[in-house]
Amino acid sequence: MFLPRRFIEVSARLSSLPGIGPKAADRLVFYLLDQSDEDVLALAEALLAAKREVMFCRRCGNFAQGDLCEVCRDSSRDTKLLCVVEEIRDLSAIERTGAFRGLYHVLHGRIDPIARIGPSELRLDRLLERITLDGVREVIVATNPNFNGDITAMYIAKLLAASGVRVTRIATGIPKGSDLEFADVFTLTQALEKRTDVQS
Amino acid sequence: MFLPRRFIEVSARLSSLPGIGPKAADRLVFYLLDQSDEDVLALAEALLAAKREVMFCRRCGNFAQGDLCEVCRDSSRDTKLLCVVEEIRDLSAIERTGAFRGLYHVLHGRIDPIARIGPSELRLDRLLERITLDGVREVIVATNPNFNGDITAMYIAKLLAASGVRVTRIATGIPKGSDLEFADVFTLTQALEKRTDVQS
Repeated sequence: MFLPRRFIEVSARLSSLPGIGPKAADRLVFYLLDQSDEDVLALAEALLAAKREVMFCRRCGNFAQGDLCEVCRDSSRDTKLLCVVEEIRDLSAIERTGAFRGLYHVLHGRIDPIARIGPSELRLDRLLERITLDGVREVIVATNPNFNGDITAMYIAKLLAASGVRVTRIATGIPKGSDLEFADVFTLTQALEKRTDVQS
Repeated sequence: MFLPRRFIEVSARLSSLPGIGPKAADRLVFYLLDQSDEDVLALAEALLAAKREVMFCRRCGNFAQGDLCEVCRDSSRDTKLLCVVEEIRDLSAIERTGAFRGLYHVLHGRIDPIARIGPSELRLDRLLERITLDGVREVIVATNPNFNGDITAMYIAKLLAASGVRVTRIATGIPKGSDLEFADVFTLTQALEKRTDVQS
């Protein structure tokens, strides 16, 4: 090999990250070695600080520094409306729309019979507790519209049936801006079944 | 914002790196926060160790840990044959072909009239010194086949004319205006094989 061991070490570590191949990793190391000592130190320290200080929100399971996350600390949010998601990246996708002003509940997983993940691993006790204590009005179940997400949603609906809270599911259908021609059979079937009246 | 400050900080730093956009940076932070403390610490330390210990080879200008780089320390290489490149990433591209068994000389730049970079900034004294001291037989000028690379090659050919050393230029075959870094192995191998004498 024509590069020093330390170079290869850091390049190998970077190329193990998602979306970074060996060539991109080498290019990153070339770039980083060209930066000032201060900049590289700042990157390394930002990484360690994030790892050290970023925890899960005690209430909703989002990333948080301290006890509660930014969403739970925002007093303008509707605390009676909960959106249940599988992962924080799903919360992140919904936040980007700006269309939701309630709070979240992150399951950190989904019921998955093949991987033997059952409901006891999904922070559902905490969900029930929140619904009772906070007087929640509606729970929107925004688990992914696939097999595992659907059975998780069904389980949650049953679990909450006795509580009297309204349980809804995000709509499935043809994505806005896409073409019917390219929609898969299941999506298109669902879109037909769940058709809505057009207001004239 | 719905993410903690430390998350945003490290994401912003990652998205300033080449080839990493804001969404990819967020995805990297999601991934890294999911790794063990040991793994994140190891990445940060590998980064700092590389930055601290990787220097330039005293002889050729490649990356090195210690005085000489891996190429210069390899006793099987032909020390009478030098390949002059602009940057270490060009050396890296040539090494990947496996077609070159001589040593390198990295200019760390090229003559660039617009950026006012002249020959005095290109380690050319060191090149002349090496040619004299090591009894070099041939210098292959593998600067990029674009305007700045070509005038740099011409300058080097003139500079070495008196020394009696054979000066060659990698063959074009690599498309004009592109970068060595991105050339495929076969094109680059051909370019090395079909090198031609430079008229001074």
